[in-house]
Amino acid sequence: MPHSPMTQSREVRLTSRPHGLPQAANFEIATTPLPPPGEGEVQVKNLFMSVDPYMRGRMYDRPSYVPPFEIGKALQGGAVGEVCASNSAAFRPGDLVSSMLGWREAFNAPPQYLQKIDAQGLPPQTFLGAAGMTGMTAWAGLTKIAGVKAGDTVFVSAAAGAVGQIVCQIAKLKGATVIGSAGGAEKCAWLRDLGVDQVIDYKAEPDLTAALGRAAPKGIDVYFENVGGEHLVAALNAARPFARFALCGMISNYNDTEPQPGPSNIIMAVGKRLRLQGFIVSDYFDQTDAFVSDMTAWIRAGQVKWRESIDNGIEAAPNAFLKLFTGENIGKMLVKLD
Amino acid sequence: MPHSPMTQSREVRLTSRPHGLPQAANFEIATTPLPPPGEGEVQVKNLFMSVDPYMRGRMYDRPSYVPPFEIGKALQGGAVGEVCASNSAAFRPGDLVSSMLGWREAFNAPPQYLQKIDAQGLPPQTFLGAAGMTGMTAWAGLTKIAGVKAGDTVFVSAAAGAVGQIVCQIAKLKGATVIGSAGGAEKCAWLRDLGVDQVIDYKAEPDLTAALGRAAPKGIDVYFENVGGEHLVAALNAARPFARFALCGMISNYNDTEPQPGPSNIIMAVGKRLRLQGFIVSDYFDQTDAFVSDMTAWIRAGQVKWRESIDNGIEAAPNAFLKLFTGENIGKMLVKLD
Repeated sequence: MPHSPMTQSREVRLTSRPHGLPQAANFEIATTPLPPPGEGEVQVKNLFMSVDPYMRGRMYDRPSYVPPFEIGKALQGGAVGEVCASNSAAFRPGDLVSSMLGWREAFNAPPQYLQKIDAQGLPPQTFLGAAGMTGMTAWAGLTKIAGVKAGDTVFVSAAAGAVGQIVCQIAKLKGATVIGSAGGAEKCAWLRDLGVDQVIDYKAEPDLTAALGRAAPKGIDVYFENVGGEHLVAALNAARPFARFALCGMISNYNDTEPQPGPSNIIMAVGKRLRLQGFIVSDYFDQTDAFVSDMTAWIRAGQVKWRESIDNGIEAAPNAFLKLFTGENIGKMLVKLD
Repeated sequence: MPHSPMTQSREVRLTSRPHGLPQAANFEIATTPLPPPGEGEVQVKNLFMSVDPYMRGRMYDRPSYVPPFEIGKALQGGAVGEVCASNSAAFRPGDLVSSMLGWREAFNAPPQYLQKIDAQGLPPQTFLGAAGMTGMTAWAGLTKIAGVKAGDTVFVSAAAGAVGQIVCQIAKLKGATVIGSAGGAEKCAWLRDLGVDQVIDYKAEPDLTAALGRAAPKGIDVYFENVGGEHLVAALNAARPFARFALCGMISNYNDTEPQPGPSNIIMAVGKRLRLQGFIVSDYFDQTDAFVSDMTAWIRAGQVKWRESIDNGIEAAPNAFLKLFTGENIGKMLVKLD
């Protein structure tokens, strides 16, 4: 039975721009009244909010591929929710939808801001994770940017993170040998469960280049970059000629207050003819159908699994976000709303 | 009239591996006897030797795309010469040939080590420069790696160097706006003569990012990388979304005795979706005919010009090589043999 219409909504606002690691004081939870949906509008009660590292970039006031978050306004972020009232013929109460309209419990919006989800029996938060933007990031980076192929040796950093865990499994499905790096025993055990061929606990390794050299004695053909810093240095050292690097993110640098030195061995890109290419998943949204077709087939066949770290209640969202940088999450970080 | 056969040859040998900037003491000139060519062999008297930055890399004893130079042996390097004796039906005295058989005055070799040159009225050293490996490096990097197209804004570092001067002109021929960086007034004047749209004298600029920002207020679409260091940082800062970087070399780092910090802003490659790709001209040798066809047409039409810095006599070769790193050469650095 669909959720009853809401009369108010709490939301997560940015109150100040973080300097370095974000602090609880950079956020506030505000309550706003929620009127009934206007003409043609749809009211959505969110079920899960997506907690993603890229949001850190939008907390800086600087030009980027998306505008910065505004102080005093709800943070924009992905969510899945349920329609609880509708004045649009396109949606009816009970429909499952995804949106990018902010970290809030409920909202009214015109239908063009909502994507209807055919859940196919999967839990709704799957469409924020493996079957949503997270999974599509893994898919686009690995298949479109890195062009993974059978026989490749693929190195994945933050391999037990939301994107990394999917990258590892797609790479295996494509016939690659996979080396995953993660921090701590529990994450490393999860990667072994996923069938990752070689697992590096980077927190236990004094020399990441040496560790990767042992894990991939013949070198790597693909690097899926989520971390930056020493991981990028090690990947450049281990790269075979013509290796392809899909640059998805560099979380180790997101909270830098001063520019940190880049990879001292970037010159290796010349002699090894490496291709380092950055990407943003939204550039591939025109290929969503192809992704969803691949991914739902893999999920149904039990070939793609995932872990989630779920915190409860909108007031948990700021701390859930901080966990991304302290590495406390395994797999997809989510906030479940009541 | 062809040169008479030789009975001895002087050659440039590496006597020790340079630490930092190469020194004269790292090289020696040795004289060796030269017998008549053996059965099926050809004797070549070199006319010009090519002096190239990439040779620095081969002075290190480390794995790379080409083996290191051996101590006590003649340095391998490009040369053009004239056949002065031949026991091969494929060559006859007076033929112009290019080879990679070492920095030496003359040598005997089987015909498969020689490429016959149809000079088409051009000076022989053209086939070490604009119409040789140097020009092909510019052509491959700009057209195959960076995929330059009309309307692009192209930034070229070491723009008055052997490769850079050709890159600038091909970019103009392709309809691009070109920004060239070089050190000193004479080089900058040469770039203006070539039609480069904006010239940066990097030695006179305290802030290369600011200088490039003024030269390309709307940003750059292509960066042809010859230098590394601050040039790469500035190019990353100036890059438009989806810019393509052809990584040809990073001469500012070739003599480093300790690893230097890489670009602190490499993370920009993610949000701007940049593609940084290294290349080696020899990977494109199967496209030599296409290059020669393009380049000879441009040269005949007066659309590609070049400067050369010519030192005389094989004993000048070590110092000519050092000039590459002190920036004393303009255009292609050559050694003319008597």
